[in-house]
Amino acid sequence: MKLFKRTLVFIALFIFLTASASAQSQNSMYQISTINALMQGVYDSDFTVKDLKQHGNFGIGTLNHLDGEMIALDGNFYQVKSTGEIKVLSGEAKTPFANVVNFRADKVGKIKTVGNFSELEKALDSIIQDKNYIYAIRIEGIFTGKTRSIGAQSKPYPSLSAAAKKQIVFDIINTKGTVVGFWCPEYVSGINVKGYHLHFISDDRKSGGHILSCGIEAGKVQVSRISDFRMVLPSGTAFQAAELNKDYSKELAEVEKSK
Amino acid sequence: MKLFKRTLVFIALFIFLTASASAQSQNSMYQISTINALMQGVYDSDFTVKDLKQHGNFGIGTLNHLDGEMIALDGNFYQVKSTGEIKVLSGEAKTPFANVVNFRADKVGKIKTVGNFSELEKALDSIIQDKNYIYAIRIEGIFTGKTRSIGAQSKPYPSLSAAAKKQIVFDIINTKGTVVGFWCPEYVSGINVKGYHLHFISDDRKSGGHILSCGIEAGKVQVSRISDFRMVLPSGTAFQAAELNKDYSKELAEVEKSK
Repeated sequence: MKLFKRTLVFIALFIFLTASASAQSQNSMYQISTINALMQGVYDSDFTVKDLKQHGNFGIGTLNHLDGEMIALDGNFYQVKSTGEIKVLSGEAKTPFANVVNFRADKVGKIKTVGNFSELEKALDSIIQDKNYIYAIRIEGIFTGKTRSIGAQSKPYPSLSAAAKKQIVFDIINTKGTVVGFWCPEYVSGINVKGYHLHFISDDRKSGGHILSCGIEAGKVQVSRISDFRMVLPSGTAFQAAELNKDYSKELAEVEKSK
Repeated sequence: MKLFKRTLVFIALFIFLTASASAQSQNSMYQISTINALMQGVYDSDFTVKDLKQHGNFGIGTLNHLDGEMIALDGNFYQVKSTGEIKVLSGEAKTPFANVVNFRADKVGKIKTVGNFSELEKALDSIIQDKNYIYAIRIEGIFTGKTRSIGAQSKPYPSLSAAAKKQIVFDIINTKGTVVGFWCPEYVSGINVKGYHLHFISDDRKSGGHILSCGIEAGKVQVSRISDFRMVLPSGTAFQAAELNKDYSKELAEVEKSK
């Protein structure tokens, strides 16, 4: 009888905990610094990949000195270097700008074929509907397009616009892999990238980078609605001195897509 | 000898923990919804004062239905109703917009006498220097000025601009109390109020509200630099349908200061 009571209490507690978990279950994004700080050349912080791993298993960003493109997928953190080489990052690696989530799909969709970035945007727009939230986006499929990476910068750091002019572009053809990224509403401009910001990594982990243009075939799309957003700001004189209040949207659009 | 070794280990551990705590010790702000959602009449959410208390003991906001001004001070949460009455809020009270921190002063300053809001801003500007962070601001002193509160709204909800036209203004004269609020950089516009957003509550808890204008004598200023910002967004059709991407800065300036 005593055991039966204990079991009942245990079951009740389990139901209660499960219910409260689901009531509280907003998907959370964790962000280091702001996109405007990156635009202004704030390329170093003390935040590490170890720190990011505590807050997510999926996301994108860059590394200190603007040394390549970061992609986090299924808990592994990768660096696409400007040589094209892809390295698995150690927990000690530092990042001046990154966004991660613990990816959990709220919606799934399919893409049969999209021929370019604007078709991809339209296809994703039809899956993402409530446009007042942030979304994490994961697409598995066959990728053809251009990605880029940027090499490590030296001080005094140039702006991101200037650094991106020396980006290295990779042509990727019919390659199986995963698109990892985010969609943000305009009201987070200055803090994050308005619209789609997508990186790619191939299944063989041999190609990837920040997507400049792309077509996708046989894409399986998963999106996760983010309604809990956390941003940690770096200390240090570079961040403190940066002009973060200007509207860099034109320069940013150029940086995001120019090729 | 064994005891001595254990003590040493204990001391070393203590130093290590203290050092890591201080390395990680960013002040955190917790925010419910966005200021643009409030501007657009999103006056209800399921977030509670109990939830706020888990994230802070100090802050400002409003209540569901836009029912008055909220002030949190030393862990007590107050509602300044449009009748002028001040109520202690229960944990069940809900809020559509609020910001809280666990207040910890990083900097202290003094204000001998300021005659109006713009002098107060100048005095605070000289204390707050790194303008790329958010700041929580606490001023204890003798307050003379105008505060306001807004009464509960009925559906269909008007915009905040329209609701604020019917605000009730209180004249407060030579009253000891505390100014509670925040300063935000322009890059969080749309999400929070750019510049100073201050509420007041008297020591006798009999007067207060959102500050429209004020002079302060013998003010003890404490500011806390926030570099960890978390924002949770409400669910529900009102938030989902709101136009959150427009620039409401003119309307907001009117709402913040008009009298």
